[in-house]
Amino acid sequence: MPGSGKSLLSSILKERGYTVIVMGDSVRKRFEKEARHGERLMDYAKRLREIYGEGIVARLSIEELRGREERVVFDGVRNLAEVDEFSRLGKPVIVAVHAPPALRYERLKKRMRADDSLREEDLRRRDLEEIALGVGGVIALADVMVVNDSTEEEFRKRALEALGKIT
Amino acid sequence: MPGSGKSLLSSILKERGYTVIVMGDSVRKRFEKEARHGERLMDYAKRLREIYGEGIVARLSIEELRGREERVVFDGVRNLAEVDEFSRLGKPVIVAVHAPPALRYERLKKRMRADDSLREEDLRRRDLEEIALGVGGVIALADVMVVNDSTEEEFRKRALEALGKIT
Ligand SMILES: Nc1ncnc2c1ncn2[C@@H]1O[C@H](COP(=O)(O)O)[C@@H](O)[C@H]1O
Repeated sequence: MPGSGKSLLSSILKERGYTVIVMGDSVRKRFEKEARHGERLMDYAKRLREIYGEGIVARLSIEELRGREERVVFDGVRNLAEVDEFSRLGKPVIVAVHAPPALRYERLKKRMRADDSLREEDLRRRDLEEIALGVGGVIALADVMVVNDSTEEEFRKRALEALGKIT
Repeated sequence: MPGSGKSLLSSILKERGYTVIVMGDSVRKRFEKEARHGERLMDYAKRLREIYGEGIVARLSIEELRGREERVVFDGVRNLAEVDEFSRLGKPVIVAVHAPPALRYERLKKRMRADDSLREEDLRRRDLEEIALGVGGVIALADVMVVNDSTEEEFRKRALEALGKIT
């Protein structure tokens, strides 16, 4: 979920030698070429899913692999169909990062200090949009849950502990 | 999710003085009176939702209160509409209990030792059925996440820690 600390986890894994594919970037690349006038990234992604199926973004991300990577992180899974796509490559390990909404909203507000329009209800609406995509199912079935409700240092500690369980 | 340790959390909270309403029991009571021949509890609950709306089970559970309880646990929230129903009574705190699927399946198999038919794929199907009800969204938006991936003793410790954050 937005503000949970998912990207921080990716960067920790990157430091440890994982290849990180940010799924949002895979969508963004196509979006820049194909978006309709005024279309939001989120709506473009929904349109892609309607045309090519629920797993499309995973397939776009898989296309970015060179085929020689051994340990890959796909950052930004949104539904279980994407997990099925990754399962064709080998057994994926789903890692979820959780933080309480109140804390996520606080972090998001801090991050975008300039943006006054970042109201609680907009953040809530964005959360519900993510959930409508199916991300809740992915979180519910996570193999590893890292809870990021404390300091960044504590999160690093928990992330590395979780990493120990994976490898 | 089934086998996560949700009921254990309820009983810990009960020991601490909370009134616990098991939402499944609220459904079951009506189910016993109104079920169609051969209907499964889950399908009955789905039918109730179609007729009375997504929040119906929460409303049935709220009806069981005497109105004098101060601290109430509703065990078994399945979707965000139910959370909205509880919000009418006061600000609810969503507590999710997470365990990795592999561990949940192991626990469920142990619990129902007699039942040979409890295969991995049936457990998986049941998980997906819970997710279709919307439980993933509730988990994603939990205010407190208790991870039950270790011993029962450790779970108790984490649960009480989490409880400290609530009260
Ligand atoms: N909030 C709910 N809405 C619909 N059905 C429920 C709910 N809570 C429990 N149930 C039903 O009761 C069964 C047992 O619930 P539980 O004890 O929470 O695992 C579930 O598999 C559902 O069929």
